[in-house]
Amino acid sequence: MVKNRRLILRRRPSGNPVPDDFELVTEPLSEPEPSAFIVRNYFASLDPAQRGWMDDAPSYFPPIKLGDPVRATTVGIVHASANKSYKIGDWVLGLNALEDYSMVQPGGFTAPIDVSQVDSPTRFLSGMGAVGLSGYFGLLEVGKPKKGETLLVSGAAGAVGSVVGQIGKIKGCRVIGIAGGADKCRRLISDYGFDAAIDYRGKTVDQLAGEIATTIPDGANIVFENVGGDVFDAELMNLAPYARIVLCGLISEYNNPSKIGARNIWQILVKQATLTGFLSSDYVDRFAQGGLQMAKWIAEGRMRIDEDIQTGLENAYPAFMRLFSGANTGKLILKIA
Amino acid sequence: MVKNRRLILRRRPSGNPVPDDFELVTEPLSEPEPSAFIVRNYFASLDPAQRGWMDDAPSYFPPIKLGDPVRATTVGIVHASANKSYKIGDWVLGLNALEDYSMVQPGGFTAPIDVSQVDSPTRFLSGMGAVGLSGYFGLLEVGKPKKGETLLVSGAAGAVGSVVGQIGKIKGCRVIGIAGGADKCRRLISDYGFDAAIDYRGKTVDQLAGEIATTIPDGANIVFENVGGDVFDAELMNLAPYARIVLCGLISEYNNPSKIGARNIWQILVKQATLTGFLSSDYVDRFAQGGLQMAKWIAEGRMRIDEDIQTGLENAYPAFMRLFSGANTGKLILKIA
Repeated sequence: MVKNRRLILRRRPSGNPVPDDFELVTEPLSEPEPSAFIVRNYFASLDPAQRGWMDDAPSYFPPIKLGDPVRATTVGIVHASANKSYKIGDWVLGLNALEDYSMVQPGGFTAPIDVSQVDSPTRFLSGMGAVGLSGYFGLLEVGKPKKGETLLVSGAAGAVGSVVGQIGKIKGCRVIGIAGGADKCRRLISDYGFDAAIDYRGKTVDQLAGEIATTIPDGANIVFENVGGDVFDAELMNLAPYARIVLCGLISEYNNPSKIGARNIWQILVKQATLTGFLSSDYVDRFAQGGLQMAKWIAEGRMRIDEDIQTGLENAYPAFMRLFSGANTGKLILKIA
Repeated sequence: MVKNRRLILRRRPSGNPVPDDFELVTEPLSEPEPSAFIVRNYFASLDPAQRGWMDDAPSYFPPIKLGDPVRATTVGIVHASANKSYKIGDWVLGLNALEDYSMVQPGGFTAPIDVSQVDSPTRFLSGMGAVGLSGYFGLLEVGKPKKGETLLVSGAAGAVGSVVGQIGKIKGCRVIGIAGGADKCRRLISDYGFDAAIDYRGKTVDQLAGEIATTIPDGANIVFENVGGDVFDAELMNLAPYARIVLCGLISEYNNPSKIGARNIWQILVKQATLTGFLSSDYVDRFAQGGLQMAKWIAEGRMRIDEDIQTGLENAYPAFMRLFSGANTGKLILKIA
């Protein structure tokens, strides 16, 4: 009998998740339900969005139910199938869970993937996956960068931010990244080609706002926001008139039970700026197209995608927490098998 | 010799303005400078925006200089002129100051007005002025209301909010207003034709959010925001997917040295909503057109404009403070002469 290890959400985290919020259980693997298939998960994407799904709060997906495994995007191989469109041995991408095997009813975000296109199936979770394509569609469709504009990116060394900055450069923008720590700031310039990098660590909102103002005295035409809180407040003090702000993530807020939000939202009024909430799920039908463009840029050496691959379902909790400590260097991925 | 009383900004207010922040001085009136004219101010508009102009902070107009009179939109009659386009006795509208007489260099917001069109020249400060037209252009051009949509308006009994709600009804929306106190809520329905009114007073953010959710379970397609702070946070918990938020004012924040901002901005992300800062100054070249439409609706009895006219430059301070206590019933105007 095949065993299936599953990381169950036992309790909704209050602030920072702790190990006891989760339990790794082992269950026998069932047969595929009618029209479903079972996927052997090889790699899972670890994303800030998963923290939001653990809360009982209105969102674009229902909260993860207590007792259910933690929802995650995975890539894997069909292990057993009762659906003639998915054959044993096929590689598939889908919104599944942190578990060895997932029962999949096709539809939604499930799609076959052609791993012969890429050097590693993890590419479908990084540059060509929902995270890389969040940067791609968020910047191109909402930010609408124009040559010569100034683009300010927070969480710039992260999986989304590094893609956004590189696309900004391809589109002819001046790109400034905000990141935590001198190492990340160095990497923004040396690895991802940003024009300037600002370290937010150890600075008050006023100090950070002042440093941004020194770097871009005319303000940002586009802000790509991944962080929220103090960093966002400092950025808001540096908007150019009619700035477009792409709200893609708020990682500093997800573990904070008393949200800071945006104290300087009045700057959106006086600068006649626009703030738009962006979810890549709206662009799923264009993922293949976006993924091809990303693959082309990667092949041409114009786009660098770093992956931070942690190993083992039993390490899912410490691996996930790397997102919030800022320890991850590149797209955080959990190797399950 | 003609004397000119002027309300001077002596000190930048910290939080709520106090009487000592201002001084009413009397100066001799000079002759018109070359190409300028002197207007005898009859009525001045008292607006929340003036509070912002008293701070030394980046905004769409420079801060009022200490020692200068408090900037205000006024209507008045040309008293003396060195400009052949403006003759003694002409009525004019302009961005002047709280003073008996203003020296005006034509341009900017200065425009002749035809008071024969209206029952009172104050109409050019209320329904047909920048305030009424903020509601007009903000809702129509940014909110883009469609028949059958739900429109949520804060500060709904105020000069902008009451116009927004009435235009929302004309455009076929379901209109819900948020206001402070039972009297204002009654007036929203009886005087301005709102479908429902919610009193925010004495309620926590969660309580107010719950009351809004009971009234509009599917959320608001459009939020027209005049208030900010707790009221805005409660509204943000009640967005329909892809909601459009028109950010027109944040009156609860202007006297608050530690801004609340928008703690629930994460809802803009998960609902893929758009928040746009709106200033009527972008639409000055269409004011005449908007004013005509407003005048037509007023004449047809489809638009009610209330004015709260306080008298005397010496009463400017207590009159202005009515905006922040919520005492004003309709567009607040100061009669100077």
